[in-house]
Amino acid sequence: MSKKILAINSGSSSIKFKLYLMPEEKLLISGSAENLGSSTSQLSYKTEKTGETRQLPLKNHSEAIDHIIDVLMSSGVVKDKSEIYGVGHRISHGGSYYTHAVAVTPEVEKRIDELKVLSPLHNPNGLAGIKAFEKFLPDAKEVVTFDNSFHHTIPKKAYMYALPYEFYEKYQIRRYGFHAPSHQYVSEKARELFGKEKTRRMITCHLGNGSSVSAILDGKSVNSSMGFTPLAGVVMGTRCGDIDPEIIPFLEEELNIDSHEMRRIMNEDSGLKGLSGISNDEREIESAAKNGNERAQLALDVFVHSIQQYIGAYTTDLDGLDTLVFTAGIGEHAAYIRSQICKNLDYLGVKIDEEKNKQNALSIEAPDSKVKVAVIPTNEEIIIARDVMNVTQQQ
Amino acid sequence: MSKKILAINSGSSSIKFKLYLMPEEKLLISGSAENLGSSTSQLSYKTEKTGETRQLPLKNHSEAIDHIIDVLMSSGVVKDKSEIYGVGHRISHGGSYYTHAVAVTPEVEKRIDELKVLSPLHNPNGLAGIKAFEKFLPDAKEVVTFDNSFHHTIPKKAYMYALPYEFYEKYQIRRYGFHAPSHQYVSEKARELFGKEKTRRMITCHLGNGSSVSAILDGKSVNSSMGFTPLAGVVMGTRCGDIDPEIIPFLEEELNIDSHEMRRIMNEDSGLKGLSGISNDEREIESAAKNGNERAQLALDVFVHSIQQYIGAYTTDLDGLDTLVFTAGIGEHAAYIRSQICKNLDYLGVKIDEEKNKQNALSIEAPDSKVKVAVIPTNEEIIIARDVMNVTQQQ
Repeated sequence: MSKKILAINSGSSSIKFKLYLMPEEKLLISGSAENLGSSTSQLSYKTEKTGETRQLPLKNHSEAIDHIIDVLMSSGVVKDKSEIYGVGHRISHGGSYYTHAVAVTPEVEKRIDELKVLSPLHNPNGLAGIKAFEKFLPDAKEVVTFDNSFHHTIPKKAYMYALPYEFYEKYQIRRYGFHAPSHQYVSEKARELFGKEKTRRMITCHLGNGSSVSAILDGKSVNSSMGFTPLAGVVMGTRCGDIDPEIIPFLEEELNIDSHEMRRIMNEDSGLKGLSGISNDEREIESAAKNGNERAQLALDVFVHSIQQYIGAYTTDLDGLDTLVFTAGIGEHAAYIRSQICKNLDYLGVKIDEEKNKQNALSIEAPDSKVKVAVIPTNEEIIIARDVMNVTQQQ
Repeated sequence: MSKKILAINSGSSSIKFKLYLMPEEKLLISGSAENLGSSTSQLSYKTEKTGETRQLPLKNHSEAIDHIIDVLMSSGVVKDKSEIYGVGHRISHGGSYYTHAVAVTPEVEKRIDELKVLSPLHNPNGLAGIKAFEKFLPDAKEVVTFDNSFHHTIPKKAYMYALPYEFYEKYQIRRYGFHAPSHQYVSEKARELFGKEKTRRMITCHLGNGSSVSAILDGKSVNSSMGFTPLAGVVMGTRCGDIDPEIIPFLEEELNIDSHEMRRIMNEDSGLKGLSGISNDEREIESAAKNGNERAQLALDVFVHSIQQYIGAYTTDLDGLDTLVFTAGIGEHAAYIRSQICKNLDYLGVKIDEEKNKQNALSIEAPDSKVKVAVIPTNEEIIIARDVMNVTQQQ
């Protein structure tokens, strides 16, 4: 029998939600609560027939969830709360404990709470979401999808940092990789669309405000550019990505700032925003660059270069490349960025058709390209909904 | 007329020296003063005919240089100090100021002193060496070779970090690249040996206790794995290389340590030593790994993987690869490491002949390899001596 499954994707001040009829994967309603805790908080949703944006005070995640459940009923997609069979939550950090999605138990909640030391911004909000649903929908089955579990197949040679080994043992310091539902979704989609043979050696580029690149061998993640945390890897909207580690003690001493302020600078003032001085939004920077702003052009060049470096690096993890996938806000819409990234990749046989690229077509490679180049819109929530089905059916 | 040129390579507690007859590049004497400031300090040298190691108290760089000049005369390679036409010094950090070697002037000395903020361990020792020669050999022409100047051709997209732009303007935070005399020497040697066409797109791997990888396009450095300082890049003997920047504030808070201690851990307790728990010496680790020590094997695997990642990344800077060069202690002697690195590079057409590899032969690629793979012993001092000739002849 078909089941209604709610997928919840909590950010630091937002909750995105989608209700699916499963296993048909029919989207019944999607929406989001934004700017939680601020005077501009709002809730918006869209069904097949209707849609609305409401300005209303939403102090925290729990209040937002109360209103989201209201919307599910007032919009008519569910008549009674009891129709919601399961709720899936995206949780930022599962450490090394979880290789797959799991049913929520007191022990899982305890782990998520403990792991807030590895994800201080996101795990507490995710846990608040789980607890709110326990209160409002006590009969629904709750499942957790971890943002790093798809990357549990990364080999030890790629996930270990060359730090004293006890930091790995005592503090779990290692590469985890994130954006797992997105890399999983687009890599599975690519295998389905283009066949397993043409996607054996695949690199997926999730390029949004947060960005990461993953190496996928025969459907399994073997490397990912985010590391111990989502700060590492390629240049992002406001995050610096990789830098010489010595810069951090140097700046702490030169600026006389503590580790807390240094962390804030690297997460909030850096990336495209720090380089361009304009914005963290790639579209605004691209427009400024076209109008001759040199720092905007530099920001784009550094961004593109950092992604190329990872593509090159990951071809060594894969011993070559069959398919290159772009996804997420920038990856799906920024033809200029995709075009720039694919330059200097001639030696891999990457060749794109600029016309198809401008149209954000599904396949943008030229007919004589040795490598498939695809633009696949991501869908993290469907992975969450599928996880709910898989976990509850195993129970 | 031939000239006697002394090349000086000062480390934190050592001075290596070579005296050449130039432009013939005939080595007259080589040697080193080691363990300066400790009870085990010693001076050793070798000429064509003789050699010696003397245990003697050497409190600092200046005392060592006084004894080095004595040795030049007592060994018979110079009869009078005045025969030494020029002295070349390797200086760690020239910031963005110097694109080539320069004659020592009061202004240059002032810059080297100012740049100690970027190279607190090495620039002061280098400057002490310059000052000692001014005292002991006042008539010799002094020239400085900077450890980063060969990398001045790295484009801005590759040398900028995605940090707030003012850190670049105010604190000169950018990628510099180091080991310049070595990358320059082996890349020039490769071009001479194999021809410019076969070495257009070249990657040079300087693998020693400190390690770095450089991308060389038509003889010019276009990227290098060391960054703002020599801590960044691939895994090294005791240095961590690249890590998620967030690890640093995390550890400072968890361990309750300051930036100074964090810097010490990353520079002295990490790398092969930190991972293996055995040693910073690749030979000892390889031997332990062969005897079944798992952490030793892990250390080698992580080291090799980090170098492969850079080789892959740099093929995107070069749009392919014609020649791969190994040099320095590990690069010249560790056949196992070279062999492991070249695995997973089939897609680039890299194929090595394991027999030639075991012999540390100059060319170790298989006959059907598309990429030239070379083992070239480095010679940083000859670059320093050539720089003395070039600079003094331009004056």
